[in-house]
Amino acid sequence: MKFYDCSTAPSPRRVRMFIAEKNIDIPVVEVDLANGEQHKAHFASLNPFRTVPVLELDSGEVLTSSTAIVHYLEGVFPEPALMGSSVNARALIMDLDWRIEQDGFMAIGEAFRNRAKSFANHALTGRHEYAQIPALVERGAHRTGLFFAWLDELLADRTYLAGDNFTLADITAFVSVEFARWIKQTPTSTQENLQRWHAEVSQRSSAKV
Amino acid sequence: MKFYDCSTAPSPRRVRMFIAEKNIDIPVVEVDLANGEQHKAHFASLNPFRTVPVLELDSGEVLTSSTAIVHYLEGVFPEPALMGSSVNARALIMDLDWRIEQDGFMAIGEAFRNRAKSFANHALTGRHEYAQIPALVERGAHRTGLFFAWLDELLADRTYLAGDNFTLADITAFVSVEFARWIKQTPTSTQENLQRWHAEVSQRSSAKV
Repeated sequence: MKFYDCSTAPSPRRVRMFIAEKNIDIPVVEVDLANGEQHKAHFASLNPFRTVPVLELDSGEVLTSSTAIVHYLEGVFPEPALMGSSVNARALIMDLDWRIEQDGFMAIGEAFRNRAKSFANHALTGRHEYAQIPALVERGAHRTGLFFAWLDELLADRTYLAGDNFTLADITAFVSVEFARWIKQTPTSTQENLQRWHAEVSQRSSAKV
Repeated sequence: MKFYDCSTAPSPRRVRMFIAEKNIDIPVVEVDLANGEQHKAHFASLNPFRTVPVLELDSGEVLTSSTAIVHYLEGVFPEPALMGSSVNARALIMDLDWRIEQDGFMAIGEAFRNRAKSFANHALTGRHEYAQIPALVERGAHRTGLFFAWLDELLADRTYLAGDNFTLADITAFVSVEFARWIKQTPTSTQENLQRWHAEVSQRSSAKV
């Protein structure tokens, strides 16, 4: 197994943090996104979508979505469980994770990629060029604010996003909140539940990778 | 268990088709999206995101993403397997399904919702209003063309998207191709693999629900 990472990028950080929580050792290949290594032939033939994270399995097959990668790792390394230990619990965690990815991570990415100068003509990942759309900067920022408010509300009556245990949902949300700094958005001072949770998760050793 | 559906909408169709393939019987509640029933208190309190599909579990908990719903159903009703029967196979199918959802289904939705008159100020689902962004109509249409080309390429050497067996990936892709008719896009005549696959999947009884 090989994990293609980029230590400065938010997308692979979900997988990096998941691996750290599992305390497993997977060989890492660093991909230099800043210098466009994802567009070079050796990487583009491994992953035609030209994104990280990538998990290359021993069979030679590759996974290119964080969601599938963490599922695979949970299946192969079940302990500690980060996605629940029943069909019911897993579905609820996946549901939450999907929502955090779509309404949080993706919204922040939208705001970021449609403004940053270095992403001109690369407003979407991949080999095709897409012009930036200024209206998405504003929309993404607005959605990020709503995302923070939703997290704060969820955390009013529980320690972690899915309940008493730290799960994949906390990883995706934490990485999203960190990513939001790139668009200069942080939880407000009145979002005390979110602040408490963020401070707590920040203390985990997996938050430092 | 209760399945909240809308028989004319593409999102719940993924779940509808999945249920039909499993040949299971789940009580259905029809939600009248055309008349805004998703914004009424009884539905908005069930699903604050105001979308269908929703699966209400016997525990009273609800799942609001197609991804989590089909995972739950696969866990409870494993036969026939629609998501592989090994950790490896499942991860590959999930990976494909995620990509089809993001690059196909979502791109088509983007093109559709940012133009249709009935979605003015509802360019995104949910309770918050979002103005339509005309640039997304064009971008979504372009991405839909690339999505079709990608499916056609994948299908050059296999019967179904994940290989020899019909899986969740075929369901999500089929529903996406059908959804693309709403933006007047269909596979081109030279996309013979995609045409062959589409004709074959159309014959399944699950394609008619």
